[in-house]
Amino acid sequence: MTATTQNIDWDGICSELSELELIRDRNQLTKLSQDYYHFSPILQPLLQDKIADLVVRPVNETEVLKVAKICVQHQIPLTVRGAGTGNYGQCVPLEGGIVLDLSKMNKINWIKPGLTSVEPGVKLAAFDKQSREQGWELRMVPSTYRTATIGGFIGGGSGGIGSINYGQLRDRGNLQAVRVVTMEDEPRVLELRGDDVQKVNHAYGTNGIITGLEIPLAPAYPWAELIVTFDDFMSSARFGQALGNSDGIIKKLICICASPIPSYFAAFREVIPEGKHCALLIIAEPSLEPFQDLVRQFNGEICYQKSAQEANKGTTVIEYTWNHTTLHARSADPSLTYLQALFPPDPDFKLLEHFYHHFGDEVMLHLEFLRTQGQMLPAALQVVRFTSEERLNEIIRYHEDNGVLIFNPHTYILEDGGMKTINVEQLEFKKQVDPHGLLNPGKMKAWFEH
Amino acid sequence: MTATTQNIDWDGICSELSELELIRDRNQLTKLSQDYYHFSPILQPLLQDKIADLVVRPVNETEVLKVAKICVQHQIPLTVRGAGTGNYGQCVPLEGGIVLDLSKMNKINWIKPGLTSVEPGVKLAAFDKQSREQGWELRMVPSTYRTATIGGFIGGGSGGIGSINYGQLRDRGNLQAVRVVTMEDEPRVLELRGDDVQKVNHAYGTNGIITGLEIPLAPAYPWAELIVTFDDFMSSARFGQALGNSDGIIKKLICICASPIPSYFAAFREVIPEGKHCALLIIAEPSLEPFQDLVRQFNGEICYQKSAQEANKGTTVIEYTWNHTTLHARSADPSLTYLQALFPPDPDFKLLEHFYHHFGDEVMLHLEFLRTQGQMLPAALQVVRFTSEERLNEIIRYHEDNGVLIFNPHTYILEDGGMKTINVEQLEFKKQVDPHGLLNPGKMKAWFEH
Ligand SMILES: Cc1cc2nc3c(=O)[nH]c(=O)nc-3n(C[C@H](O)[C@H](O)[C@H](O)COP(=O)(O)OP(=O)(O)OC[C@H]3O[C@@H](n4cnc5c(N)ncnc54)[C@H](O)[C@@H]3O)c2cc1C
Ligand SMILES: Cc1cc2nc3c(=O)[nH]c(=O)nc-3n(C[C@H](O)[C@H](O)[C@H](O)COP(=O)(O)OP(=O)(O)OC[C@H]3O[C@@H](n4cnc5c(N)ncnc54)[C@H](O)[C@@H]3O)c2cc1C
Repeated sequence: MTATTQNIDWDGICSELSELELIRDRNQLTKLSQDYYHFSPILQPLLQDKIADLVVRPVNETEVLKVAKICVQHQIPLTVRGAGTGNYGQCVPLEGGIVLDLSKMNKINWIKPGLTSVEPGVKLAAFDKQSREQGWELRMVPSTYRTATIGGFIGGGSGGIGSINYGQLRDRGNLQAVRVVTMEDEPRVLELRGDDVQKVNHAYGTNGIITGLEIPLAPAYPWAELIVTFDDFMSSARFGQALGNSDGIIKKLICICASPIPSYFAAFREVIPEGKHCALLIIAEPSLEPFQDLVRQFNGEICYQKSAQEANKGTTVIEYTWNHTTLHARSADPSLTYLQALFPPDPDFKLLEHFYHHFGDEVMLHLEFLRTQGQMLPAALQVVRFTSEERLNEIIRYHEDNGVLIFNPHTYILEDGGMKTINVEQLEFKKQVDPHGLLNPGKMKAWFEH
Repeated sequence: MTATTQNIDWDGICSELSELELIRDRNQLTKLSQDYYHFSPILQPLLQDKIADLVVRPVNETEVLKVAKICVQHQIPLTVRGAGTGNYGQCVPLEGGIVLDLSKMNKINWIKPGLTSVEPGVKLAAFDKQSREQGWELRMVPSTYRTATIGGFIGGGSGGIGSINYGQLRDRGNLQAVRVVTMEDEPRVLELRGDDVQKVNHAYGTNGIITGLEIPLAPAYPWAELIVTFDDFMSSARFGQALGNSDGIIKKLICICASPIPSYFAAFREVIPEGKHCALLIIAEPSLEPFQDLVRQFNGEICYQKSAQEANKGTTVIEYTWNHTTLHARSADPSLTYLQALFPPDPDFKLLEHFYHHFGDEVMLHLEFLRTQGQMLPAALQVVRFTSEERLNEIIRYHEDNGVLIFNPHTYILEDGGMKTINVEQLEFKKQVDPHGLLNPGKMKAWFEH
């Protein structure tokens, strides 16, 4: 409850919505108002006591329209929630009100070769399990794929395992169409196709409630999981780069962790020798043979290998990559936090090498190779030893001054975490579909500054 | 018959090989000693009267071993032939002797997800027809895919439709393993796997007779064929580049033809308006929607579209791309010939634009985008108005002086057409497996100069 929502007659609202699943239990409200923002010592104090007044769990679009209508009538803030695995408080209801939990809208409408139509609450792993039977899978998933929803990935995610092939979610072609429920006086369903999807893509649910998505699919290979170790970090980075640029070797994940990061991986402690730098990899089984030649060329050591068949069960390397790397580091040492960066084209890795030495163990290098505009580049989710906000900002500034793009994970403001510029298209769309500014208020800077 | 082979007792040889299919008919011998070298006015006079003494058509590896043994015993030159669609006289028997036609060794041993084992005589199109039923297809094919064989593609080809995704045949991972019959005193079968395949990959059959191949496969999409036209050439080139770099749009072919090349395409004369520059494209059907957005962005005009289902029948854009572009140009005007080039990284296309204007219609630009070491670059098969050998060499030199790599198609010498350096690995392998230098003599410079 906030100043905005304290005068609302919640009992009245609940009886208007009595046919829907409603949650008012305080513990549940607390839980369903949170995500993983606690990875950031900056966001932690800012968001910890934000809480919804009511959680509604619709099961179909008609119910969503109903909630939207009531929110407009009563001027209630509405924040959409998928699985709440975001890292920047994306789904935290800053002004209270209703959290619309879409996890029960989890129907797969159809799967065709290369394309699917789903409801937003479908979990990524559950989807892949089903679509792989037809030879297809999602082009990219975050490392939270077991729990995260497709709608939440589009609403608040960026890319992940698979981005080495298809780039990121924002790249043209990685989201085919969306259905959006508006918060106009008379809420409607709009269909956005093609480039128009960018109006709501990665908008933190600030300008429409996504109730359906058409998502392009990738062909499913039998994927093997491997860990390769190296004596020195630069060799591991160069190996990652060479693998990424090996057009004849099919891969889905190239994650490079500088020592001592691997020492935080409890499950692999017996596997990865102390002091080694490692590559966590997913390789198509038919490519394993040429892959081994590449490993030899870079003097790597394969210390772990799981066949595609085994990889479906138990430990998966996926859950040690992307932001799961940070999670394991923080489990071992809660004073650690992270950054998100994109290194500029630098084939000789001069800049990378500089950064590797410059900060030492204060900023431990964790690279995720991905494709951006046809080019393979290393993104980084550096594990950072946190001392103070000032020092963190100093580290960020040093990166930016050296041409490394930082996607700051220590802000819940849409623009500040991303491109740092106002997205006119998303702002204009918000003016149209959410004229009262009720959707996830406080997140889109362009809106509250306009 | 040549000086080398005139003392051979061909009747005796034939009776030793009487269980095999043998061809001695002069017309047939002439036909089976030729390929498409006539695209080059330089090669035409050099190769036109080269002819085999005997063509042998084995049906299995045992028969190949038998022929190899006899060739060694009698010191008979042996030149392997697939379908004879090479462009540089690769399979023309410079010293006569036996042409070993492998077109009857055309068994598909097995097709697994992402990998197949085949005999060398399997035709590329025939293979794809069968493997697509299982959801897989060859990673890349030449535009001669209807007639060319897999063994011939590995022996004498380089890449083609699909290279935009997987690079070229020489790239690690695009050829998994080969079986090779040697020409040692006691011919053997060797298996080469992994990087070792490079010993015989693109060696014009000079150092082993490939009798089996393991080839990695690509997932088969429903592929649509399209032609997009542009008012100016640079827009068409930039469109091709942007499409190549659109990681979220799945494609298999990006061929750009400067005007007046499209006017040579009889089948598309009604379709492509006079004076336009065009892009011949293969796009995955689920990517057509974002593709259309890209076309709009570059002010292109889709003038032809064939669905995946229709694309299996009748005219295919494939047969207007790669070196088929040259073929159609030469049908219209036999004084035309061609070059093969790779432009260096040049994101703004300053160099390309220079070349477009510099030579005018003497060197008409035909680009084929492909991936090399992870990077998308334009290869070119320029259509060249031939006047003299001197002028042709001048044109070549001008390209090379400006940093454009030329793969000269006007030579039958292995090294001169390719990297222009001696391939030590292939030479060493030839010393081992063909100590008498009987395999396709006169093609490997490193051998006859060593
Ligand atoms: C350990 C860890 C690892 C992670 N790894 C990755 C990674 O590899 N890649 C990556 O991109 N992210 C990653 N994340 C962040 C996050 O897990 C993913 O982006 C995930 O896909 C979010 O899905 P969700 O269902 O949990 O969304 P939520 O957190 O519930 O929502 C995310 C945002 O989308 C909005 N939203 C949700 N559903 C809708 C809808 N239907 N309509 C409109 N807006 C909606 C929400 O309001 C919110 O702003 C990671 C997080 C953690 C904690
Ligand atoms: C119009 C046209 C378009 C073309 N387009 C392309 C293209 O897009 N990409 C491309 O790469 N090429 C292209 N080519 C060249 C050629 O068609 C292809 O490389 C084709 O794959 C050759 O196959 P083939 O069966 O005809 O081989 P052949 O011409 O019969 O043989 C090619 C070479 O390989 C050797 N060889 C054949 N079989 C074996 C074997 N089993 N073991 C060892 N050596 C062997 C031969 O001795 C010869 O040196 C084109 C040619 C033409 C005429």
